[in-house]
Amino acid sequence: MEITYRAIGIIHTPFRDRKKTPYQYFVDNAEGTIEIFPEYEEGLEGIENFDRIIVLFHFHEQREVVLKVKPKISDEIRGVFSTRSPTRPNPIGMSVVKLLERNGRFLKVMNVDMLDGTPLLDIKPWIDTKNI
Amino acid sequence: MEITYRAIGIIHTPFRDRKKTPYQYFVDNAEGTIEIFPEYEEGLEGIENFDRIIVLFHFHEQREVVLKVKPKISDEIRGVFSTRSPTRPNPIGMSVVKLLERNGRFLKVMNVDMLDGTPLLDIKPWIDTKNI
Repeated sequence: MEITYRAIGIIHTPFRDRKKTPYQYFVDNAEGTIEIFPEYEEGLEGIENFDRIIVLFHFHEQREVVLKVKPKISDEIRGVFSTRSPTRPNPIGMSVVKLLERNGRFLKVMNVDMLDGTPLLDIKPWIDTKNI
Repeated sequence: MEITYRAIGIIHTPFRDRKKTPYQYFVDNAEGTIEIFPEYEEGLEGIENFDRIIVLFHFHEQREVVLKVKPKISDEIRGVFSTRSPTRPNPIGMSVVKLLERNGRFLKVMNVDMLDGTPLLDIKPWIDTKNI
C-alpha cells in the first residue's frame, strides 16, 4: 500500500553538511526557522500557546534502507527501529523543538537537528504527559 | 513535491468505530498489537530495551483536510497544527505507547488510540529528554 504526502513547508537550519548535523535534537541549541507554505498558514493558529512543538519531516537526502545499524553513541549493532537513524524504511524524522517566536507563517525554533532545506510534513503540539 | 511511503505493518486495536476511539493516547490504557511485516522484522532488534516507543501511523480513514478545528477538549477553534486532529494536510498520527512484550514481529503495547487495522509507518524509541 502506497501512501503519498506532500511537503507543507521547509525547515531552514544552519546545517548544510550531514556529518556536522547534530544526531539528536536535544544535544544542541541550534536555532532554525520553520516556513509553512502560505496555503497552510491558518492551520498554525494557536501554536504560539505551546512551548515545544513536534516536527515531522522527510529525510530528503536519504537513499538507502539499512535495517541493522550502529548508533553514533554506541558500538552495538541495533535494529533501525530502536534508533533514530535516517536509514529507515520510511525516512520520517521527528524532533521536539522549542518554539521561540511566531511571525505569520514563520516559526523561529531552537534545538533543530535536521539539514537545511528539509521538507516539513507535519507540526503537532508537544504535550508533556508526565504532568497529566 | 510528492513523498511516497509504504506501510511497514498493521496496528491491531480494540477500536473499530472512530467515535469510540480515544482522542489521545494517554487517556486510556487500551492494549493492542503492532504487527511488523516479515521483511522488516530484523529492524526491531533491541526495541525490547525500551519501555515506551513512538509509533507513527497513517490515518487511513481520513479523507478531508480541515485547517481550523474544534478540539474535543475545548470549544475554542484552533489551527489543526496546534491539535492532534486527524484532518491534517498529511494525515500522520503519532502516539507514545508502552511496550509490554515482544514476540518476534509482534509487539504487545498499551495506550493505543488508533483504529483497528491502521497502517504503521515507523517506530522510534522513546527517549525521555527530561532526564538527559
